Amino acid sequence: MKKIGVVLSGCGVYDGSEIHEAVLTLLAIDRNGAEAVCMAPGMEFREVNHLTSQETGATRNALVEAARIARGKIRDVKDVSAAELDAVIFPGGYGAAKNLCTFAEKGAAATIHPEVARLIREMAVAKKPIGAICIAPALIAATLGRDYKPKVTIGTDAGTAAAIAATGSEHISCPVAEFVIDRENKIVTTPAYMLANRISEAAEGIEKAVKAVVEMA
Amino acid sequence: MKKIGVVLSGCGVYDGSEIHEAVLTLLAIDRNGAEAVCMAPGMEFREVNHLTSQETGATRNALVEAARIARGKIRDVKDVSAAELDAVIFPGGYGAAKNLCTFAEKGAAATIHPEVARLIREMAVAKKPIGAICIAPALIAATLGRDYKPKVTIGTDAGTAAAIAATGSEHISCPVAEFVIDRENKIVTTPAYMLANRISEAAEGIEKAVKAVVEMA
Repeated sequence: MKKIGVVLSGCGVYDGSEIHEAVLTLLAIDRNGAEAVCMAPGMEFREVNHLTSQETGATRNALVEAARIARGKIRDVKDVSAAELDAVIFPGGYGAAKNLCTFAEKGAAATIHPEVARLIREMAVAKKPIGAICIAPALIAATLGRDYKPKVTIGTDAGTAAAIAATGSEHISCPVAEFVIDRENKIVTTPAYMLANRISEAAEGIEKAVKAVVEMA
Repeated sequence: MKKIGVVLSGCGVYDGSEIHEAVLTLLAIDRNGAEAVCMAPGMEFREVNHLTSQETGATRNALVEAARIARGKIRDVKDVSAAELDAVIFPGGYGAAKNLCTFAEKGAAATIHPEVARLIREMAVAKKPIGAICIAPALIAATLGRDYKPKVTIGTDAGTAAAIAATGSEHISCPVAEFVIDRENKIVTTPAYMLANRISEAAEGIEKAVKAVVEMA
């Protein structure tokens, strides 16, 4: 059974992993006959109240919160190497751009969480597929842009597309129900809630993208 | 468009709503052409660390945490009446048996959160469909058992089935990919993670159950 890493960043769209995207990714991995290996970095992040969209001033731990999505079955990213995975997928949510890296604040000058950067680079060197959903393609662009010039999509947002282009990556516009595949770099991306107005719209693109990742793995 | 209430109890299987069940419910509602109306009670609950499965000693708020699953679009149960809904669905997770009622601790002698009890009773009086997933059928049994003698399933767990029978309800054994429908009371239940070993197993029963609820609504 193919093992597909799923890198989470918390539990909730405003300060962690977008929950629908993460769950739809896990479902699509299972339905394509593969096994999900959930992981997150053991780092603190700034908590956002999802009723008000405001920061509370408190922090939470990304690994502990992501364990909610993974039903407790989750590992620290630092303990996972590309050698044990056949592919890796990054769901979206602000956590992908605020916790796993600083793209939300710094754009193309983002710094990447060191263990997340290590895993992404290991996967690229091993030529194993990388999937990224919603804003998470910006993390891949910021990590691999200079060396691999990947083609990715976050949908159609011009400002985000420009910041991705500034990393050395190429941004390709894409509708919500579709995905972009960079066959040379084995990178698969889909806009999901960067564009989706309904969960079924996000699901359609995620199902197609995850299927493509598992097939390439 | 039919409006289907989705009553959440937090965000995470051990102290709130089971996240996969909640998201799969939202997806199935959308794919069946209906609109989800997310809600949760504005109550404090005891936080459980999902990495260790242990209580932390801290509390969180069910409405604020459930807002993570609902992407911020959620209402307090106290502000929702059966008059504006065509049906209501309760995803599972320990929150359904610890926050929405005290079934996890008290069994058939459980007390029900007053606003949750009010909404369930309003739906029953209006003969509008009620769906319940995983352990949430125990909440419906504890609320309506004496007056309506509903037929429900939580799968096959003998101890839980006995506690449900003690409410005056009838428990019917059911495999994970199926559901039980009480046509007289318009109550639809499916075991999901009471039995599921994989997310795709939970999804299959939830998709069938939600479809049945929306069709009856």
